[in-house]
Amino acid sequence: MVQIIKGNIIFTDTPNKFEILNDSYIIYEDGIILDVVTDLEDKYYDIDIDDYGNSIIIPGFYDLHVHSGQYSQCGVGLDLPLLKWLKKYTYESEIRCEDPVYARKLYEKFSRDLLSYGTLGAVVFSTTSYEATEILFEEFIRTGIRGYIGMVEMERNAPEYILKDLDYAMDMIESLINEYSSNKLVKSIITPRFAPTSTREGLKRLGALAKKYKVPVQSHLDESEEEVEWVRSLYGKDYAMVYDEFGLYGDSPTLMAHGVYMTDNEIELTRDKGVILVHCPDSNINLSSGIMHSKELIEKGVRIGLGTDMAGGHKLFMGEVMVRAIQLSKLLTLQDGMKSEPLSLAESFYMATVVGGGFFGKLGKIKKGYEMDCLIIDDDEINKEIYSLEDRLSKFIYIGDDRWIKKRFVSGVDLY
Amino acid sequence: MVQIIKGNIIFTDTPNKFEILNDSYIIYEDGIILDVVTDLEDKYYDIDIDDYGNSIIIPGFYDLHVHSGQYSQCGVGLDLPLLKWLKKYTYESEIRCEDPVYARKLYEKFSRDLLSYGTLGAVVFSTTSYEATEILFEEFIRTGIRGYIGMVEMERNAPEYILKDLDYAMDMIESLINEYSSNKLVKSIITPRFAPTSTREGLKRLGALAKKYKVPVQSHLDESEEEVEWVRSLYGKDYAMVYDEFGLYGDSPTLMAHGVYMTDNEIELTRDKGVILVHCPDSNINLSSGIMHSKELIEKGVRIGLGTDMAGGHKLFMGEVMVRAIQLSKLLTLQDGMKSEPLSLAESFYMATVVGGGFFGKLGKIKKGYEMDCLIIDDDEINKEIYSLEDRLSKFIYIGDDRWIKKRFVSGVDLY
Repeated sequence: MVQIIKGNIIFTDTPNKFEILNDSYIIYEDGIILDVVTDLEDKYYDIDIDDYGNSIIIPGFYDLHVHSGQYSQCGVGLDLPLLKWLKKYTYESEIRCEDPVYARKLYEKFSRDLLSYGTLGAVVFSTTSYEATEILFEEFIRTGIRGYIGMVEMERNAPEYILKDLDYAMDMIESLINEYSSNKLVKSIITPRFAPTSTREGLKRLGALAKKYKVPVQSHLDESEEEVEWVRSLYGKDYAMVYDEFGLYGDSPTLMAHGVYMTDNEIELTRDKGVILVHCPDSNINLSSGIMHSKELIEKGVRIGLGTDMAGGHKLFMGEVMVRAIQLSKLLTLQDGMKSEPLSLAESFYMATVVGGGFFGKLGKIKKGYEMDCLIIDDDEINKEIYSLEDRLSKFIYIGDDRWIKKRFVSGVDLY
Repeated sequence: MVQIIKGNIIFTDTPNKFEILNDSYIIYEDGIILDVVTDLEDKYYDIDIDDYGNSIIIPGFYDLHVHSGQYSQCGVGLDLPLLKWLKKYTYESEIRCEDPVYARKLYEKFSRDLLSYGTLGAVVFSTTSYEATEILFEEFIRTGIRGYIGMVEMERNAPEYILKDLDYAMDMIESLINEYSSNKLVKSIITPRFAPTSTREGLKRLGALAKKYKVPVQSHLDESEEEVEWVRSLYGKDYAMVYDEFGLYGDSPTLMAHGVYMTDNEIELTRDKGVILVHCPDSNINLSSGIMHSKELIEKGVRIGLGTDMAGGHKLFMGEVMVRAIQLSKLLTLQDGMKSEPLSLAESFYMATVVGGGFFGKLGKIKKGYEMDCLIIDDDEINKEIYSLEDRLSKFIYIGDDRWIKKRFVSGVDLY
């Protein structure tokens, strides 16, 4: 059935410029946008239009890196250095998900909060628990948002209680791939925690599984200097090359979180194999990891999306992540004597919508042929009187929260 | 009349450590805390106790640097460099306040939003408009929060339309000082915008006014490199020394926003004259100004409070400001190879409560003899089950918002 909504449409088609369509119509059917027009043709005269007046219609946000098992912990213990933080809080948070009652409560809240903040798709590290991962799938499906969900594979270099036997983990991961392979919105993703917690054998088998089922891959890459050295001492090569050796670097669609410390060879490989780096700016400063050279990497042809990295990052709202990406980029510009340009608002918006959405399908733009995911934003009266549409969007990103979002559409379905 | 509330009390008495009193009582009368105890004496048996159960009781927040006239503009235009941003947005925002209907609407929202986010006192740059400044006084008084409000003095180096004649400005500022001198919660503060927009004559007369009425002083200091050079070219000396020459640097209680680029002489003068620097981390990165060496300055004996610097900063919630101060401090630590320690959560909390509150009076601690300003915080069930009180507070600061604040007391009065 053809449906139509009306409002002020704004999105990015190219990375550095907003497309603005005031008082325009989105015509869609079966979750796909048929057309976006400013003047409606006569043939639609008998269709009821949902008119959102002076509200703003934007694409949804897509969080490309988030740890569901750490969601209870956001904002806690961030005075601690990384390794103490992991040990005192993070592994403890994750193991708590072995309790299905707790996992259900946490993941129900997690899924609902994502939707509520306008994140219409998330690529998630679950934990090493098969049961909790299944609960997460169920809660995403119940909430109606898009997801790539990965049961985490880790067999060494972490407390014994959180590790799983490789054979068991491989069976469970394969079983989840099969179980959800026909789901339209929520699917599996191969998820080694990071190179140091897998063995060569583990990485090899995960690579083979990704190939067998054509399933995407996610992991961590070049997050902190100490970690990079560790990987080199374990595998004797650059970090990205470790994943690449085992078919885990761009042979199927691949996300790598962080990329703060990339060698030239890694940058080249990343660009050539179309691996998407996930910039998680809050996490990188909370954990004193460093600043990703986002603008420089983009100029070198690398695709970069955004992630909250909950609970290294602390805020679930992707607007916060965009702002922090811009702020860190400004600090790099300041460091090099203002010779480079920082990320613009449009660029960071493009990362959160077009690059993020692109990982899930034809998503992230409000254009003919794209899937019908969008948010309706309503700001206050003072704004509407004074500011341009682009300024109003800027305001939502800088100071908005879930309360500004009036409607959330996924694949044409009005959720909530 | 003696009143008692009960809950989990947490505050900082010294900069680097939280004081925690589980299930304890605050006994207060006429806005002053008589005692804080874990076991209640029998003599209070007939007083009704407001029991907030497992909620957290903390001091209020005090924002030491905020521009009310820019409040409509928060989050807008931050891709622009400072001077273009000022011209396109900021002066336009401020001049709009000449319209009393607009000013009333904006300041009503501003005052209400401050309270709602737990900011129980704010030191405000109004605009050059006398009428709007008066409206701001009225709205603060109506809302019930504490304020130091300054009508901004500027006579040169900005668009003609926003400047005021010095004689007129001095008369109006003096009139506001007199008008509100007996108000308990809201008072005047001498407010030259910054050295470049005042003449020597203007600074001299403002210094004399501060002395005559024993009124505090606020302005901007060492915010960006370009600005510091400008001040030197105009006055031929260090920035702080300009204010000092005219009795505007610590002769009465003084706040100086930013202090990113301080010379050793300025640091010494600041410490010796007890001037409080106001760290506005979001503003400093949004406008690509630089990173204040907050931890180092504190170690050198300088007192530092926190400010949102709305609309250079974009968030009104002081928790955000605390987090950004910690994050920027971590980046400095990272730059010096992790040799220094970054600001801790307790330190940044101390800045927002004890240093901030201290500017207003005996405030910022939940202790006998202090004024009874506090917030009641209620977090979610998952938190309460798992985390310590300090972790729960951390969470409120990192991810909380106005919805977490259940009650706001100013001078013993439950507002809202």
